Amino acid sequence: MSEATKEQLNEKEKQEKEMYDEELLIRALQQEDLDLFRSEFIQLHSYDQAKFFSKVEDELRIRLYHYLSPEEMAELFESLDIDEEDYQDLLAEMNPSYAAEMLSNMYADDAVDVLNELDKEQVVSYLTIMDVESAKEIKELLHYEEYTAGSIMTTEFVAISQNQTVRSAMYILKNEAPNAETIYYIYVVDDDKKLVGVISLRDLIISHDDVMISEIMSDRVMSVGVSEDQEAVARQMKDYDFLALPVVDFQHHLLGIITVDDIMDVMEEEASDDYSKLAGIADLDSIDRNPFHAAKKRLPWLIALLFLGMFTASLIGRFEATLDKVAILAVFIPLIAGMAGNTGTQALAVAVRGIATGDLEKENKLNLIIREAGTGLITGTTCGIVVSMIVYVWKGTFFLGILVGVSVMISLFVATLAGTLVPLLMHKLKADPAVASGPFITTINDIISILIYFGLATLFMNYLI
Amino acid sequence: MSEATKEQLNEKEKQEKEMYDEELLIRALQQEDLDLFRSEFIQLHSYDQAKFFSKVEDELRIRLYHYLSPEEMAELFESLDIDEEDYQDLLAEMNPSYAAEMLSNMYADDAVDVLNELDKEQVVSYLTIMDVESAKEIKELLHYEEYTAGSIMTTEFVAISQNQTVRSAMYILKNEAPNAETIYYIYVVDDDKKLVGVISLRDLIISHDDVMISEIMSDRVMSVGVSEDQEAVARQMKDYDFLALPVVDFQHHLLGIITVDDIMDVMEEEASDDYSKLAGIADLDSIDRNPFHAAKKRLPWLIALLFLGMFTASLIGRFEATLDKVAILAVFIPLIAGMAGNTGTQALAVAVRGIATGDLEKENKLNLIIREAGTGLITGTTCGIVVSMIVYVWKGTFFLGILVGVSVMISLFVATLAGTLVPLLMHKLKADPAVASGPFITTINDIISILIYFGLATLFMNYLI
Repeated sequence: MSEATKEQLNEKEKQEKEMYDEELLIRALQQEDLDLFRSEFIQLHSYDQAKFFSKVEDELRIRLYHYLSPEEMAELFESLDIDEEDYQDLLAEMNPSYAAEMLSNMYADDAVDVLNELDKEQVVSYLTIMDVESAKEIKELLHYEEYTAGSIMTTEFVAISQNQTVRSAMYILKNEAPNAETIYYIYVVDDDKKLVGVISLRDLIISHDDVMISEIMSDRVMSVGVSEDQEAVARQMKDYDFLALPVVDFQHHLLGIITVDDIMDVMEEEASDDYSKLAGIADLDSIDRNPFHAAKKRLPWLIALLFLGMFTASLIGRFEATLDKVAILAVFIPLIAGMAGNTGTQALAVAVRGIATGDLEKENKLNLIIREAGTGLITGTTCGIVVSMIVYVWKGTFFLGILVGVSVMISLFVATLAGTLVPLLMHKLKADPAVASGPFITTINDIISILIYFGLATLFMNYLI
Repeated sequence: MSEATKEQLNEKEKQEKEMYDEELLIRALQQEDLDLFRSEFIQLHSYDQAKFFSKVEDELRIRLYHYLSPEEMAELFESLDIDEEDYQDLLAEMNPSYAAEMLSNMYADDAVDVLNELDKEQVVSYLTIMDVESAKEIKELLHYEEYTAGSIMTTEFVAISQNQTVRSAMYILKNEAPNAETIYYIYVVDDDKKLVGVISLRDLIISHDDVMISEIMSDRVMSVGVSEDQEAVARQMKDYDFLALPVVDFQHHLLGIITVDDIMDVMEEEASDDYSKLAGIADLDSIDRNPFHAAKKRLPWLIALLFLGMFTASLIGRFEATLDKVAILAVFIPLIAGMAGNTGTQALAVAVRGIATGDLEKENKLNLIIREAGTGLITGTTCGIVVSMIVYVWKGTFFLGILVGVSVMISLFVATLAGTLVPLLMHKLKADPAVASGPFITTINDIISILIYFGLATLFMNYLI
């Protein structure tokens, strides 16, 4: 394909992607043409509405609160993908009763995400002017800790009893469909509201109208506990290809459901989180528009590493006598430290990813450690031999080659083990695994490898001079 | 909560998670008790069936091909999460006609995933003994390139025409439900099979039986091109909270659909991919059971970095005269190189993540570069000042402090820019972004920072002695 054709295709793709006419909307807002604006805007998918909303200038955005009903704004808000701190400013722009009505029209889990960003007093005042039913639902959800199943579940689900026919279940479904977050799984509960079964809309549709629910429901219904970690929930949903999962308390009462769209957000969040830890950066959720903000996120790590680096420097300082005699030793510092850092990061990545995907749950941790030790021995020996030969050919000193090679070998072995053990230990201690981030492991391995290198060099100094 | 209670709860959770009785199944297989085995096994979710299948010993696994029908085995295979190379061995264990029938019972996209791992001749032979209809569907899908929308779509979807009532649409749906991969979106096509609309099952259910489809369908239907990158498809599905997306050719003919469960796999795959690149490791998809395999995946990077490290060593070697005079310079090599490496990785992570999430599509690349330059200047200056002061206090030499501080400052600035520019350039050139991986950036920045440090030291040698 020629470059020109490619260019054209890209252009076409771009136009296809742009599902709405932004300029038309802006013009309609500027001219205060309510009808034109609504006729176009209401047609859009809520994600596009939200994109427009967060892009448009402040003074035009404020008009939207008059052009759209609280119900319409609720849908837009559910799709909004902004920094969480910004919710407070946006709500402050609205008339309080408009804001409260919007919140009560949002799915309870999304409303809670917004309310979590406000001061306690504000939350209380919105809940007071809101309709009682919604306020009650929201209050229940506000209790759950962040990153648990409870914090991402919604209470708008369809539950039926097993002692009814498919016909009556379909009747309930039709009535609840407009309010439920998903109607594709229907949960079956007993008289105590305990979860006893599940049936998919697909099965409901292909069943005869007079069949009893108890006959066609599956009683092997999978559920998650309300305090379970959201990452574990995401893994389960992905493994079993569910579109929704019920959330229960310890007595198996059905409390809510988690839908797949929220799980996709969790997966993205967790992936971002693992990634930022490996890179040693506080938060990659959104791109900073301001270099000061960006620097603020990176500096804590850099300063911490600076002090660790100073420690490394002081270690080398202790070998100044060795260095003074054999200055050439300095030449290989970055090579040895760099390789140890890289192997450590590789081992770290395997362990962290194994924890994240749950692959490691299935097997004995000791097996992993033994295997990583083996891997470190193989990579260390291979690289050590290669380095020895290169240094020998380059510098013509047999013993220097051996020294650098053996240092690389031991360093890689120890670095691989450190990269495996630190995250496993963090996981075991349920400590914040951020400590086991990439730069930290790299710097620790710098220190270890330099100790090994200069330790060996000082021990066998006689052979070097 | 006391530790003991926690322990108990964990134990309870574990038992709940274990949804099936593994020992019972194994015993039934060993005793060749077909009825007992089937009565338990058939009840399981296909993911649990697959887990059991890949865990059980070879000789027992082979019995499963006699205990389960090809339809049942097809469902199990769809949930199988194994190394792709293993498919060939598993199929070889089966009777060819059993294997062909199993493949024809799988969703076409999943069957293609399996067939893609076989030799051409094997594929042809399976397709020949398979029923004609399935073979045709599979052949069509085999054409699409990996990692495109076409490669992950399925052709088992429900399409209707707009000139019919809700009643007749529901009738079609009930008939196709058992074979379609999802029935929760129904796509509307015109006489030329071009996609013209979409309607959700939810809307269908709440509509009156006599309403025409054309009245209630949405004609703003979003779709993806068949050759579009799977990552872009995943992003769109996540942003818009769809459960399925239609795939069209350039003339807007409906070719297939992509369902959310496949998209979750893509998200996991892409996250793993970004993560492994940052860690400099070939593939993190599955944990290696063998240290030699693990070492094989890591050594290519390590050897490449070894040679780059040798280059760094030779650079320092050129400054041997400087080092001989001022041995203390060596002390700060790991500090400066390490910090440059870390800042570079941070900037790399921001750029790569921005490209992955699509955030960068929306804005001018030049803005990002300017912003990162600003960030590099701020972090560089801050760290530079801190380092200068520490070195001055520690060593009491004013000029050494300035030298190390200025080196850190310039290195951090340049490293941040390199971390931003390299991935942007790779993306622009549509080159394999693996080149811009974490260890590569780190090592490049090692070299840059050492050049800056020793360059400055050599230039201002007089002040140092």
